[in-house]
Amino acid sequence: MVTKEIEEQDGLSRRLFLTGTAAAGIGSLAVEMASFSAEASTQVAAADVASLPRVKQELVAPPFFPEHDQVAKGGPKVVEIRMVIEEKIMVLDDDDAEIWALTYNGSVPGPMVVVHEGDYVELTLVNPASSAMEHNIDFHASTGALGGGGLTHVSPGEECVLRFKATKAGVFVYHCAPGGAMIPYHVTHGMNGAIMVLPRDGLKGKNGEPIRYDRAYYIGEQDYYLAKDEDDEYIRYDTAGEDYADYMETMATLTPSHIVFNGAVGALTGDNALKASVGETVLIVHSQANRDTRPHLIGGHGDHVWESGSFTDAPQTGLETWFIAGGAAGAATYTFRQPGIYAYVNHNLIEAVLKGAAAHFVVDGEWDDDLMMQVKKPTPI
Amino acid sequence: MVTKEIEEQDGLSRRLFLTGTAAAGIGSLAVEMASFSAEASTQVAAADVASLPRVKQELVAPPFFPEHDQVAKGGPKVVEIRMVIEEKIMVLDDDDAEIWALTYNGSVPGPMVVVHEGDYVELTLVNPASSAMEHNIDFHASTGALGGGGLTHVSPGEECVLRFKATKAGVFVYHCAPGGAMIPYHVTHGMNGAIMVLPRDGLKGKNGEPIRYDRAYYIGEQDYYLAKDEDDEYIRYDTAGEDYADYMETMATLTPSHIVFNGAVGALTGDNALKASVGETVLIVHSQANRDTRPHLIGGHGDHVWESGSFTDAPQTGLETWFIAGGAAGAATYTFRQPGIYAYVNHNLIEAVLKGAAAHFVVDGEWDDDLMMQVKKPTPI
Amino acid sequence: MVTKEIEEQDGLSRRLFLTGTAAAGIGSLAVEMASFSAEASTQVAAADVASLPRVKQELVAPPFFPEHDQVAKGGPKVVEIRMVIEEKIMVLDDDDAEIWALTYNGSVPGPMVVVHEGDYVELTLVNPASSAMEHNIDFHASTGALGGGGLTHVSPGEECVLRFKATKAGVFVYHCAPGGAMIPYHVTHGMNGAIMVLPRDGLKGKNGEPIRYDRAYYIGEQDYYLAKDEDDEYIRYDTAGEDYADYMETMATLTPSHIVFNGAVGALTGDNALKASVGETVLIVHSQANRDTRPHLIGGHGDHVWESGSFTDAPQTGLETWFIAGGAAGAATYTFRQPGIYAYVNHNLIEAVLKGAAAHFVVDGEWDDDLMMQVKKPTPI
Repeated sequence: MVTKEIEEQDGLSRRLFLTGTAAAGIGSLAVEMASFSAEASTQVAAADVASLPRVKQELVAPPFFPEHDQVAKGGPKVVEIRMVIEEKIMVLDDDDAEIWALTYNGSVPGPMVVVHEGDYVELTLVNPASSAMEHNIDFHASTGALGGGGLTHVSPGEECVLRFKATKAGVFVYHCAPGGAMIPYHVTHGMNGAIMVLPRDGLKGKNGEPIRYDRAYYIGEQDYYLAKDEDDEYIRYDTAGEDYADYMETMATLTPSHIVFNGAVGALTGDNALKASVGETVLIVHSQANRDTRPHLIGGHGDHVWESGSFTDAPQTGLETWFIAGGAAGAATYTFRQPGIYAYVNHNLIEAVLKGAAAHFVVDGEWDDDLMMQVKKPTPI
Repeated sequence: MVTKEIEEQDGLSRRLFLTGTAAAGIGSLAVEMASFSAEASTQVAAADVASLPRVKQELVAPPFFPEHDQVAKGGPKVVEIRMVIEEKIMVLDDDDAEIWALTYNGSVPGPMVVVHEGDYVELTLVNPASSAMEHNIDFHASTGALGGGGLTHVSPGEECVLRFKATKAGVFVYHCAPGGAMIPYHVTHGMNGAIMVLPRDGLKGKNGEPIRYDRAYYIGEQDYYLAKDEDDEYIRYDTAGEDYADYMETMATLTPSHIVFNGAVGALTGDNALKASVGETVLIVHSQANRDTRPHLIGGHGDHVWESGSFTDAPQTGLETWFIAGGAAGAATYTFRQPGIYAYVNHNLIEAVLKGAAAHFVVDGEWDDDLMMQVKKPTPI
Repeated sequence: MVTKEIEEQDGLSRRLFLTGTAAAGIGSLAVEMASFSAEASTQVAAADVASLPRVKQELVAPPFFPEHDQVAKGGPKVVEIRMVIEEKIMVLDDDDAEIWALTYNGSVPGPMVVVHEGDYVELTLVNPASSAMEHNIDFHASTGALGGGGLTHVSPGEECVLRFKATKAGVFVYHCAPGGAMIPYHVTHGMNGAIMVLPRDGLKGKNGEPIRYDRAYYIGEQDYYLAKDEDDEYIRYDTAGEDYADYMETMATLTPSHIVFNGAVGALTGDNALKASVGETVLIVHSQANRDTRPHLIGGHGDHVWESGSFTDAPQTGLETWFIAGGAAGAATYTFRQPGIYAYVNHNLIEAVLKGAAAHFVVDGEWDDDLMMQVKKPTPI
């Protein structure tokens, strides 16, 4: 596999050895877990999940959500989903920045999955023979085996099926974690997404009141670490993984070249802007699998914010800006009160404007002078 | 305007084009919003705000607060404030660091505004003819039109009046947001401040008990990104805006040259130290319009902390350090229990000491041996 | 002392002067406080602490906790602890990275201290004659005199005794803070630790239910800023303090060379991995004295999380990742539900894998297929 070859050939063998081979690091865990859990699962009686109803969830590309019920109908289900890995060139910006993105289902971020607390997620993960690398998946919503990472290592040409029970209500990141330095490498090449585990009776405010939304959008913030050549141009590569040695160096600076929403600069602006109407309540799930972010809706607020993503805690209310730690997803609702174009940004404004972390909402409806009024237009003094 | 000329002349036209002209970015929103909202506001009947009482609030330079009632007297008011933009050289430190600061009313941060929930803020924003640049203002406390940013673009020699209703209780940032790369540029040149929207019946603890303060201080943390020349000296510029191309490059590193409280190193230390007495409760509002910070009072605590700035949520209690996301303001109260000199810092200690983010409190009163006692002075072993 | 000599000789005298000598900075506070508080404490009658029972707490090296009761037996006590400063070479990784670490009791982080709210901590701080530098200690859990920093400056060959009352329940950082640039220098050389102040009746969940733990581990995250020579090799130094001028420069980049748990890469992996069993509840206290972090247990969760470290606030529940601000400690409990090897990381995955911030838990017990099952092993498509 390319992974191994690259790890052996490059100049960063120190850390790779440490985390990828020796017992000391994260790298080797995947292999150990795979055998460990496989054995274990033969020793323990399978749960009688077989008797539960099964539904297929058609995953869609972000920022959209799959069809789902806000309040669960009936008891726990097995929700079947399918993800096909795709390694592909993505253009990040009009400055000739491009990357061999590593994706679930072809999008950065990967698709949003929605289930209810107590449901079982059954994922078929497919790595086509055309892939250059091994991949897997770690669900922060799951319990055990490195979030499933230890049980899902699929080489090119392989597929596997993982089932886990969604025991915690909230929004959670999933991401690829093949081991060692490949973990941040894959994650910062776009290989991450989110799952929303709703309480069976739906979202609730801090006084227990039901919270319902009219639309839901999923914004996945992505940090990339592109390297440049001596002419200050972004380097292009012919195949996935070829950027490995260069990328290790740029990652070590902890300073991304690009920070974007949904894969590329402009992915959620202009024709791709998010839509809403005055009076509608929008749920925004925002994930960042690696780096902290601070969502802010310019001209709006977070009416209800689950900053750390847990639906078993009451939401905060009336926030100007909220904070999502790297490796987490958060959720917020807002009921639009004014029409217009809103920018939704990571409110480190350098990251928003110079690095790319900005989206737009286009909201129609009637303007409310009571909330805001231009009493006097800009006029000579 | 200088803004436009600079945007066209420099080497960063890629991003500026993207965010400043094309439909994809934040830049063009301001213009679109201005026309959109102006039209809208002619179509909707004006609210009968005319019948409400009006008061003028005299704004003062931070760290001080304007005179205000902690509990509102009577019903909603229209609170008239006036801000005059001033572009001025500020000395940041004794290492020859200086910047053409962009300010509201001449200070970094801009003045604290205080109203009560349900009040209307009516701002007259004046950009003197002597200015080199266009400016505007985005209130995170407001609703619609990019926080008012879309309705307040004042060119040199212009003024405008914006009114908005303070519907959310809390502390909120305001800042200049003229469009595109000028947004982080203006904000990191000092053009930001905060407003406090008090609940009408005042602040409350997590059990609903009233919280009152004897003094209130406003600390605005500011990140600057000064460029150096080949001799490792900070570059000086003759006019506001002349540092634009250099500043774009330093901002892109995400590593500030200076991180300071209230505009410059030492602005709140020595003769400018904040004052209090044992037994007094001090309210500290801390804003950071762009970058995360972690306030800490050395030798004290946050008794009550509204970390995300919302007064519709209960405060946290008994914190050693609190966290304020970039693009937000937070509030904390502390009742001093010991006399002495306290340092109040951003507890990334490198940012506090090497970059400048430190203030002092000088507190008089009686020392309490029960809380702390030097049982044995430093003595030879 | 080395400290002073270095401060005078290096090229960073600007900032050092500012914060170390002039009235403007943090540096001079220590000296002022020392005299201030010493005077004060002679004027105020000593509390009748003399009548309280006294116990000696034997401190142990992290990740372990000293023996302690989760629920206090009896009334307040004076808890006597002793810390001996040790300046020593620590190997950080197998890439020839080493540092003259500055430590309390020889470990990075320093030992965990455990008391109950209302207890008095009485610390004997010893700086052996063999030390090169002056040191002190600032307890975030204490009140006054810069957290005791102003009363504990011990030169080589000196010792002192400080007593403070633990009035706030929670987990809190302590660290060395000798003044000026030496504050971040000492802290990022390892001189920090944590204290846990338990409520007298133990930890409680958000509904007031008691929370008890079977094991407790203390993870101290440490950022180091090692400098390299022209050959890209880490520079080695013959004595403590000799790296001062180089270190100032690397600190100013705000980009650590290493971010590790408990002193060095691999300190909590392999043979040093943390242990637990399925069904056991583990308390993890995580501190970061200088820089933000985002703990995450891969394949597990935070069942109860005191993100800001205060035990007077209810814990958050069911978190995938939590956030601890630089200059703070946080606590979390997790009841393990699956056996296997877990990685516990700072979920900026670059910081975890490339910089070193990873630990392992090895958990024995029975695998639960209901929670997770490998339905189909990786198989050719």
